[in-house]
Amino acid sequence: MSTIENITFDELEIGQKAEYTRTINEEEILLFAKVSGDTNPVHLDEAYAATTQFGGRIAHGMLTGALISAAVALNMPGPGSIYLGQTMKFRAPVMIGDTLTVKLEVISKREGKNIAIIDCNVVNQHGKTVVKGEATALVPTEKLVVETIELPPITIG
Amino acid sequence: MSTIENITFDELEIGQKAEYTRTINEEEILLFAKVSGDTNPVHLDEAYAATTQFGGRIAHGMLTGALISAAVALNMPGPGSIYLGQTMKFRAPVMIGDTLTVKLEVISKREGKNIAIIDCNVVNQHGKTVVKGEATALVPTEKLVVETIELPPITIG
Repeated sequence: MSTIENITFDELEIGQKAEYTRTINEEEILLFAKVSGDTNPVHLDEAYAATTQFGGRIAHGMLTGALISAAVALNMPGPGSIYLGQTMKFRAPVMIGDTLTVKLEVISKREGKNIAIIDCNVVNQHGKTVVKGEATALVPTEKLVVETIELPPITIG
Repeated sequence: MSTIENITFDELEIGQKAEYTRTINEEEILLFAKVSGDTNPVHLDEAYAATTQFGGRIAHGMLTGALISAAVALNMPGPGSIYLGQTMKFRAPVMIGDTLTVKLEVISKREGKNIAIIDCNVVNQHGKTVVKGEATALVPTEKLVVETIELPPITIG
């Protein structure tokens, strides 16, 4: 078990940055297919995917969205934040084995409303942007330190 | 195994609608926490979540995003679509056990670019909107019928 701590609205500064990195493997594709119900062969069937313009299996676009949401919820502003909105432009495909880094940067704060707008730039291991967007969050005014929860084992196959 | 068929750009009409319904249970929360890495206690610890403004565990906001993306990929325009963008406003929390219906409606088509803008309204079993947004998709010009893939069994705990 580990603890995470939020950044309060007063502490949060314009230009402040945070990063969150995850690798997209077979497991992530299967779990995302299960949870969303999207079992399109472009994500799951290498033979089919090889015939598409992508030349191989790609991750679901919204799987990158899931990483953005985790970056906001875990890192900046972190626990106690209320997610108000998210925009995303899908710029490039994510292939299995890609390592994605979500780069967050605070671009504005609405004083009095405790709302922050956070630029989201997700790059792969080659530095190429795969998703660009903005998160809007209601930022906690009180310091919060919480324990993250250990998940039960999840077995595939 | 089942097949899904796309709606081509020529077939797609402004005002055309599609729906996609899923229930958010414990399993969905655990799988989304695993795939995103977001193990905040507001999603996973009932005792903690009861002390928050939500009064109980809530689903990750982006889990609803995953359902929107599946609706676009499976139903309208369906297979062969390229997801270009998505906006989302999170309007109300999703609690465990909620049944969500993603309601899609084509609001514009960019002729010559084969791009469609699709309104996305996600409602719960009480008819309350939990997420509003717009999807932007590059719509296939060729008819495509593909087989969805059966996932291996996924066991939790």
